[in-house]
Amino acid sequence: METAASKSCADLAEAGREFYRRGWVLGTSGNFSKLLSRDPMRITITASGLEKGQLGESSFLELDEKGDVVAGAGKPSAETSIHTTIYRTMPDVGSVLHTHSVWGTILSDLSFELGAIEIEGYEMLKGLSGVTTHEHIEHVPIIANSQDYVELAQTIENVIDEQPDIHGIYLHRHGLYTWGETVSEARRHIEIFEFLFEVLGRSLS
Amino acid sequence: METAASKSCADLAEAGREFYRRGWVLGTSGNFSKLLSRDPMRITITASGLEKGQLGESSFLELDEKGDVVAGAGKPSAETSIHTTIYRTMPDVGSVLHTHSVWGTILSDLSFELGAIEIEGYEMLKGLSGVTTHEHIEHVPIIANSQDYVELAQTIENVIDEQPDIHGIYLHRHGLYTWGETVSEARRHIEIFEFLFEVLGRSLS
Amino acid sequence: METAASKSCADLAEAGREFYRRGWVLGTSGNFSKLLSRDPMRITITASGLEKGQLGESSFLELDEKGDVVAGAGKPSAETSIHTTIYRTMPDVGSVLHTHSVWGTILSDLSFELGAIEIEGYEMLKGLSGVTTHEHIEHVPIIANSQDYVELAQTIENVIDEQPDIHGIYLHRHGLYTWGETVSEARRHIEIFEFLFEVLGRSLS
Amino acid sequence: METAASKSCADLAEAGREFYRRGWVLGTSGNFSKLLSRDPMRITITASGLEKGQLGESSFLELDEKGDVVAGAGKPSAETSIHTTIYRTMPDVGSVLHTHSVWGTILSDLSFELGAIEIEGYEMLKGLSGVTTHEHIEHVPIIANSQDYVELAQTIENVIDEQPDIHGIYLHRHGLYTWGETVSEARRHIEIFEFLFEVLGRSLS
Repeated sequence: METAASKSCADLAEAGREFYRRGWVLGTSGNFSKLLSRDPMRITITASGLEKGQLGESSFLELDEKGDVVAGAGKPSAETSIHTTIYRTMPDVGSVLHTHSVWGTILSDLSFELGAIEIEGYEMLKGLSGVTTHEHIEHVPIIANSQDYVELAQTIENVIDEQPDIHGIYLHRHGLYTWGETVSEARRHIEIFEFLFEVLGRSLS
Repeated sequence: METAASKSCADLAEAGREFYRRGWVLGTSGNFSKLLSRDPMRITITASGLEKGQLGESSFLELDEKGDVVAGAGKPSAETSIHTTIYRTMPDVGSVLHTHSVWGTILSDLSFELGAIEIEGYEMLKGLSGVTTHEHIEHVPIIANSQDYVELAQTIENVIDEQPDIHGIYLHRHGLYTWGETVSEARRHIEIFEFLFEVLGRSLS
Repeated sequence: METAASKSCADLAEAGREFYRRGWVLGTSGNFSKLLSRDPMRITITASGLEKGQLGESSFLELDEKGDVVAGAGKPSAETSIHTTIYRTMPDVGSVLHTHSVWGTILSDLSFELGAIEIEGYEMLKGLSGVTTHEHIEHVPIIANSQDYVELAQTIENVIDEQPDIHGIYLHRHGLYTWGETVSEARRHIEIFEFLFEVLGRSLS
Repeated sequence: METAASKSCADLAEAGREFYRRGWVLGTSGNFSKLLSRDPMRITITASGLEKGQLGESSFLELDEKGDVVAGAGKPSAETSIHTTIYRTMPDVGSVLHTHSVWGTILSDLSFELGAIEIEGYEMLKGLSGVTTHEHIEHVPIIANSQDYVELAQTIENVIDEQPDIHGIYLHRHGLYTWGETVSEARRHIEIFEFLFEVLGRSLS
């Protein structure tokens, strides 16, 4: 089972290499996961503390819904509960990606008082699943950062319950969580958001 | 015929890898085409929804003038009509490239009221086909973005009829269309415009 | 002994390639070292004047505590005394890395009057060894640049004596010195600091 | 003779790949040369109109002092006379490199009225040949751009006669010319200048 999980993580490792190259997961930041089965929930996720540009077969853990390790060696990240919460509350999600970028960090500061990064009128919005026109308004809720990940996960669950159409959440001065039905879609969402964060960040500052 | 078309797309695939590396076609944005024959018109163009950094033999479709698929598997992009319009209205064009960049997006906003991005006095302008001095003034018309691609294609045809000497068109908050006699020339135009957009965008902001 | 030292420098060479790619050690700037033994002190360090993106087996020197060459061909950098001072005054340090970045240089100017770059409230701070919350305040002392490296090393020793919890020092308009128990940790500190310098530099300017 | 010249251009081709990656020679801009013999003068230089990221054996021409082709296929760049002028007026120069960067272009505009880019107080200045302290003041004369390369070459000759200690010249809104005793030194000068142009450009704007 371990080997199967490792093999299936080539797409997450490739995303890691690309995000690292772009400076979105420097210094072991970020974490990536995908859903292996929904019932019972099994996810594969990057082990804590690894360099995201150099992920390999042994870099991933298989976890159950409580976040306990089922296969693989290493410690799960403290942020695992955010991943499991997103899988539990959004039934179509098959992958969750989390990055830390310069422009996202700056923009989460510039927009913190508003409670959300609001993006409107850009063609690139059409890269978000289900969005069909640039006239779409995308809200990326900004949540105050915390080291209490149980509380954070609960806050995120509440936000998703209230705004089920969002494609991502920003932890203030921390990083982006986005997701998709597949790793490929989640990766596309990272690229779309990071592009738009840079456009907005540069335009505002 | 499919194999021949696939083989001839190595230059477009290579352009895609390079543009992706530079962040000009993130999140499956952008599309690239070249003319296979003018009469009857046959073009090869990237299929819709693909990651532009990873184009291969099967990533391209062969289309006729109406945009119907003649060879290859996949769906043509909704923007195909812009490509066929450009080939039809500019008899020397052999390749059309479309990118989405951060600085182009910002500059199209800063210059939207003027109706065009106006570039004057830079040596890099000489990289545009037929331009022989930095004292040249290049107008890149900015067209309001729309999801009605038939209307957009018509607007673009009118703009080209009125300003046949332009080297590119910017769809507001969307992206650049440029072209050339060959893929190599069109790619050079992309690089020249993106360079100048960054210079102008940084200088104005 | 030389061969052993050369072999063990693959991690420093790899850091050099990555830092060069990111523009943090352009034009032969920067230098990297690791501790081979503490008593007697033996370190391996990049020879002076080399391109940091192309380090190989012969690019490193083995030095004793006084900075005299024990193995390898080439001249030690004038900044060697800073490395030996850090190893001597911080008993847990196993690697010292020094980079020159655009944003670090700019930020050292913007913060020079304050005497330190002060960083607070960012999740990325948790990438610094021993930091467990984003609410941490990190001070990076800024030291006036000088060509008298004996005096500089003494100043750095004094700063470390007074502030033993710091993770790095900035030489004004020159570059960052950071360190770690291992090359991997020191490299992570470089990435964390450079990320935060860019965030702060862009936010302040 | 052609083969010998081709072989010896691997260092120029490698510089081209790296500068292209960094965006300093986009769109076939820039040109690179090295001195093969001083008396009679023989230089090898990139042929006109080539992509600088993809230089190979056949990308270079061997020229005499008048700029006539002695070996190789292709057209010399119109800027060849600037290269031969620099070799003629500076007896220690063995390589001349010319790049077009975003920050250099912007900075040449910001400093145009002053007649020079003035750089003072940065450690990176020590990367320029013969500079031993950050307290050095480097002047990079800015020359008005022109399509009359005979006149430009004469102006550059006059500037070098008056200021023989300079390490580079900037053509306004065009690009940087720098040089060195070897290709390696000239490449280091490019990296040093481009770094400092970005620091200054960002600090001023």
